[in-house]
Amino acid sequence: MPDQAAAMQNRGMVARPALWRRVVALAVLAGAAALWAATSAMASPVTHSTLDNGLDVVVIEDRRAPVVVHMVWYRVGAADEPPLKSGIAHFLEHLMFKGTDSMAPGEFSAVVEANGGRDNAFTSWDYTGYFQRVASDRLELMMQMEADRMANLSFTEAEWLPERAVILEERGQVLESQVGRQFNESIMAALYKSHPYGIPIIGWRHEMETLTGADAMDFYRQHYGPNNAILVIAGDVAADEVLEKAQRIYGPIDPNPDVTRTARPAEPPHLAERRLVFEDPRVGTPYVSRMYKAPVRRAGDQQEAAALQMLAALLGGSSTSVLERRLNFEEGIALSAWAGYSGLARDYGTFSLGIAPVDGVSLPEAEAALDRVVAEFLEEGVDPDQFARVQRQIRASEIYALDDVQGRARQYGVGLSVGLGVADIDGWIDALDAVTPEQVIAAGQMLLDRRASVTGYLTTPPADDVEEEVSQ
Amino acid sequence: MPDQAAAMQNRGMVARPALWRRVVALAVLAGAAALWAATSAMASPVTHSTLDNGLDVVVIEDRRAPVVVHMVWYRVGAADEPPLKSGIAHFLEHLMFKGTDSMAPGEFSAVVEANGGRDNAFTSWDYTGYFQRVASDRLELMMQMEADRMANLSFTEAEWLPERAVILEERGQVLESQVGRQFNESIMAALYKSHPYGIPIIGWRHEMETLTGADAMDFYRQHYGPNNAILVIAGDVAADEVLEKAQRIYGPIDPNPDVTRTARPAEPPHLAERRLVFEDPRVGTPYVSRMYKAPVRRAGDQQEAAALQMLAALLGGSSTSVLERRLNFEEGIALSAWAGYSGLARDYGTFSLGIAPVDGVSLPEAEAALDRVVAEFLEEGVDPDQFARVQRQIRASEIYALDDVQGRARQYGVGLSVGLGVADIDGWIDALDAVTPEQVIAAGQMLLDRRASVTGYLTTPPADDVEEEVSQ
Repeated sequence: MPDQAAAMQNRGMVARPALWRRVVALAVLAGAAALWAATSAMASPVTHSTLDNGLDVVVIEDRRAPVVVHMVWYRVGAADEPPLKSGIAHFLEHLMFKGTDSMAPGEFSAVVEANGGRDNAFTSWDYTGYFQRVASDRLELMMQMEADRMANLSFTEAEWLPERAVILEERGQVLESQVGRQFNESIMAALYKSHPYGIPIIGWRHEMETLTGADAMDFYRQHYGPNNAILVIAGDVAADEVLEKAQRIYGPIDPNPDVTRTARPAEPPHLAERRLVFEDPRVGTPYVSRMYKAPVRRAGDQQEAAALQMLAALLGGSSTSVLERRLNFEEGIALSAWAGYSGLARDYGTFSLGIAPVDGVSLPEAEAALDRVVAEFLEEGVDPDQFARVQRQIRASEIYALDDVQGRARQYGVGLSVGLGVADIDGWIDALDAVTPEQVIAAGQMLLDRRASVTGYLTTPPADDVEEEVSQ
Repeated sequence: MPDQAAAMQNRGMVARPALWRRVVALAVLAGAAALWAATSAMASPVTHSTLDNGLDVVVIEDRRAPVVVHMVWYRVGAADEPPLKSGIAHFLEHLMFKGTDSMAPGEFSAVVEANGGRDNAFTSWDYTGYFQRVASDRLELMMQMEADRMANLSFTEAEWLPERAVILEERGQVLESQVGRQFNESIMAALYKSHPYGIPIIGWRHEMETLTGADAMDFYRQHYGPNNAILVIAGDVAADEVLEKAQRIYGPIDPNPDVTRTARPAEPPHLAERRLVFEDPRVGTPYVSRMYKAPVRRAGDQQEAAALQMLAALLGGSSTSVLERRLNFEEGIALSAWAGYSGLARDYGTFSLGIAPVDGVSLPEAEAALDRVVAEFLEEGVDPDQFARVQRQIRASEIYALDDVQGRARQYGVGLSVGLGVADIDGWIDALDAVTPEQVIAAGQMLLDRRASVTGYLTTPPADDVEEEVSQ
């Protein structure tokens, strides 16, 4: 079972928390996209404008507390890395805290902390984001520091060399020491033949070991700049004042003429179902994880994605959803069974299914049961009561989501980073509301074609894996 | 069952035969490397020298017939292609026949044909080769034409555009219309996570469709030149005369200063066995194919590769080898079962196992039987009689291999292209002779660890894959 709950914890420290924590958190967020985006319908409107230098500015007013979240998102991530340089986007994220021509290494986070704030950063395949949460009267200081490092990053070998050890240690701690994440890394590598979503965001260790500060600076010079960035400011602010500040502080930064969208390899047709078996003595609970390549939310065209999101909610969104109800409560086969959809990406989304069987049920038996229940669901159609309940849950979640200004800010940052517009973010709830049971079943037919999928077994090595006596 | 026998046929036409025919032929050749390399021990010695401009020159004297084989090999292939440009090495191979500043499109092959010769070319992951076979008094003309296109390639859009349709058609005919090759393409894509051996030599169709003449010319300018090439001349020639000609004809070509060895992504650790199921109604005989990432022959260090080659010969080299004897003749489970080793590559080799079961035996049953027989072989050790027989076969094959001057030339071309020296090619038989039964068993232990392998099932879709009645 993915330990997503644990990954949602926040360490509450000033230093950037682990990359993978952020990534997994985002996956959960995508799964619960309904929650975050729901706010837009009831909250004060979102302002979106673009400065002359290309910087997108999104302002979300939320006056309930004298706090502001300040985020800069770059439309570049691990899927834009050059060959042999996997991990460079994330390495650069770390080095962005090393100082500028006018800031000393570490000064950025120290200033945030001294002002009672928190800062953080995150790297994904499609974007790299930086944020601070501070008292609203400190916003301008944050903007000045962030604008500074947008154009004036500077570091020496004495600074980047130890940071490379830090990211290697991070890979060890948050990935290699956690067998479920290694398993997931293997599944993603098997899912994509050409596209860089098959390469782990944090990088392959043997390539990370060769990264240099010059590589990071090359990546910075090619991809960072106001014309490849989104500024999101949410909280106790007035939109016109924020725009004035943005114009004054970020406006003078020249667009970076080297910014181009990286051309990424597309996937060839997927003709054969793939499977993998990951055996490791550390495995506590064996489980089956299936990942399908799936459509993403597209600007102006989110209906198929919305149907997949509803499908995920119906199949596996809660303890009353189809997989849990059938496989856990009724048949007693599963400790847990789940479904998820991740559609907030530039190129490809994923739909996932999984089952952790009870003792005495093998992984092949569990997988067969999972497939049977999914097929029955697609044949029998959606239960109207459950469908209505899921839709009610989504609407109810709007109230909850209004409370999370940081989550709202993040939603716009991610959305704009992957090519959606504000209207797509704002329209997501309507898209979900418009989904019909028939569309859910139609979208779910993709689950019957496993050619674009990888099925992984995470399990312990066989106990009888010992030398047999030689008979000769 | 791989249709390798068919692939060995030669169409006997002037135009370059299909890429995949060549590639598969090469795989067979690697499997029978003992045959080709054996010649060196008894044949007249091979001369190897290097011109001042970096061109390697290998001369093999063989005076039995007034015929000469003239080959130029470039140390660059499909594994050196830039992102998004898969197929460009092979596309360039085609465009090399389009003419130069002084030769008209198509003139090259026409001149060869008018002189009673044959020409051909082939692209692999590690090299691109061009050859002509002519009467030995026409050698100098071939050298002049080949030297000309080494530096002076030239073509227009009117020439490259239709040739792109040709390579697309080639992909359709020799790959997409042959389910076994599509299956193999899928296995290779699943075997490699990072390294470009996972990309088909001919390219992914959606990328081939975007290739341009400018892309091919870029690839040519970056990789072609005397300092990245090997000239192999074999047949009715005297080494000193050939060297004089080479110096006079190829010597004046300046080294290409842009030639660098492409840095290729290395594989991250393989932690999880992968499997795939390729279902296609065209499948006549279902079979299981397993491919392991394996060591290659290394310059000065071929002993592990030699042990793997002997292992392949013992397990699956003939109808009396272990897999056929046990699974076909004794147990009657298999129509056919095979093993193979391919170690002539720059970065990674492959060891393959396969079984096509008889009717009534499922693929999982067949695979289990295959694994059982391999495990028993590794436990029981090598049968001394069989080992002696295989070694005798290898020595006997030297006589046969002497007859094939073209095969000998090819062996040196491939070997030098992937980083071996003449001494390694000449020493291969000795390396095979030096292998002990214990080394075979030790090398075979890798077959018990499936983490660095892909197992593929090629089969027809389930017959009962029809809509069931909806019960609701």
